[in-house]
Amino acid sequence: MLDHIRIVLVNTTHPGNIGAVARAMKNMGLSDLCLVSPKHYPDEAATARASGATDILDTAQVVDELHEALQDCQLVVGASARGRHIPWPVINPRELAAIALSSTEKGVGDGAVGKRVAILFGREDRGLTNEELHACHHHVHIPSVEGFSSLNVAAAVQVICYELRMASLYRSEVDKPQWGTDWDIELADHAELERMFEHLERTLIDIEFLDPDNPRQLMPRLRRLFLRAVPDKVEVNVLRGILKSVNRKMLSQSDDDADR
Amino acid sequence: MLDHIRIVLVNTTHPGNIGAVARAMKNMGLSDLCLVSPKHYPDEAATARASGATDILDTAQVVDELHEALQDCQLVVGASARGRHIPWPVINPRELAAIALSSTEKGVGDGAVGKRVAILFGREDRGLTNEELHACHHHVHIPSVEGFSSLNVAAAVQVICYELRMASLYRSEVDKPQWGTDWDIELADHAELERMFEHLERTLIDIEFLDPDNPRQLMPRLRRLFLRAVPDKVEVNVLRGILKSVNRKMLSQSDDDADR
Repeated sequence: MLDHIRIVLVNTTHPGNIGAVARAMKNMGLSDLCLVSPKHYPDEAATARASGATDILDTAQVVDELHEALQDCQLVVGASARGRHIPWPVINPRELAAIALSSTEKGVGDGAVGKRVAILFGREDRGLTNEELHACHHHVHIPSVEGFSSLNVAAAVQVICYELRMASLYRSEVDKPQWGTDWDIELADHAELERMFEHLERTLIDIEFLDPDNPRQLMPRLRRLFLRAVPDKVEVNVLRGILKSVNRKMLSQSDDDADR
Repeated sequence: MLDHIRIVLVNTTHPGNIGAVARAMKNMGLSDLCLVSPKHYPDEAATARASGATDILDTAQVVDELHEALQDCQLVVGASARGRHIPWPVINPRELAAIALSSTEKGVGDGAVGKRVAILFGREDRGLTNEELHACHHHVHIPSVEGFSSLNVAAAVQVICYELRMASLYRSEVDKPQWGTDWDIELADHAELERMFEHLERTLIDIEFLDPDNPRQLMPRLRRLFLRAVPDKVEVNVLRGILKSVNRKMLSQSDDDADR
């Protein structure tokens, strides 16, 4: 299970925190670290705070954009403090561990391998942006006190990795499949979902339901709805098939208009 | 419960770690910190890493000997790596939290107040001595991997304090809101959902995506997807608004056809 979990640090400012994250990961048996556009990296401070976990740093992927970190991931969870503009499904670290365990261990469909799960941690001073949070199926919140709620990023990674390790060690307690039943089809991955959302947005503009000059919270609301359901590959294909049918009708209409 | 828990740091070498411990404690709602003969304290590095938790540092007790830190404590637990010379009762952080919860909440005897619990963390390089460990009722072990088992002391305190907080928050799991967050809008009821599904089905027939003579498993798949997400009233309204826009486009197309 733990080798299917990717820790993604977005725009980390202090390299010491990257080192402390590597140490926390290695202590708990995780190894897949991805750094999205870190401010200073590589850096001596990272190596010092890694305290021997330099192999994690050496094999860490460094990418420019978040979506590069998420391409092959089928479940994306973002660390968040409370009180975002649009509520999103929020789980605590223990629930995250249970979900991650069942996601990565039960392959679905013939020859399917376990899902890759990405857990995102934002900037030291202001966490993840709303746009980044809206790419997530769930948000994970470490239940800190009101008024002093911001954990150090390495401390947050330590807590999450600890729960993942506890779940992998004591799996009998959480050995429940996603949604309580064995699923018949592999879940859609991040890239497939993003293409579906792009197609949906274009279509909503075409049918004049979405005004691109005044989009309000329409796409975030629809993203939240579909991501909450964690669609499988066939469901995404069905949704795209519906959108294509709408597109075709629109097109034949314009042809009719042009024919006159 | 949490105000009856004392975190005791024994002979800490790096003042930055003391600051990080103060921050972790405050994040999780603990406040009783005791420093046994720290190497450098007070120190600017402690204040910097405390990141606003300076009240914890200001009120921390500093003592010369461990026994001074434990005088009023009725339960003492020492953080320990595996494999000590003499086996001792070892619990994991979750078990510690359960024991601490019942110890501090259940007073013993008439008019007894809850017990004070001390949790000890040793030196960065070699932890607690055997003598110190033998002053403990239990040892708590964070289940790290063999061969890379030593957590940073502040990371270890973070994990323990997190488990204590989880225990204090989730003593009854029943009254948690759906999706772990307070939702802003009432959930759609059965009748609203059924009207939405009827509308969806009619529309899919209109756009010739669904063949009523050969419907296969299309509607069941779509029902399963949307029901899994448990839509709220606004989400259902948004979905019906999208369907209406498609209907309107279809209608204007038929009008065009009829006009010819």
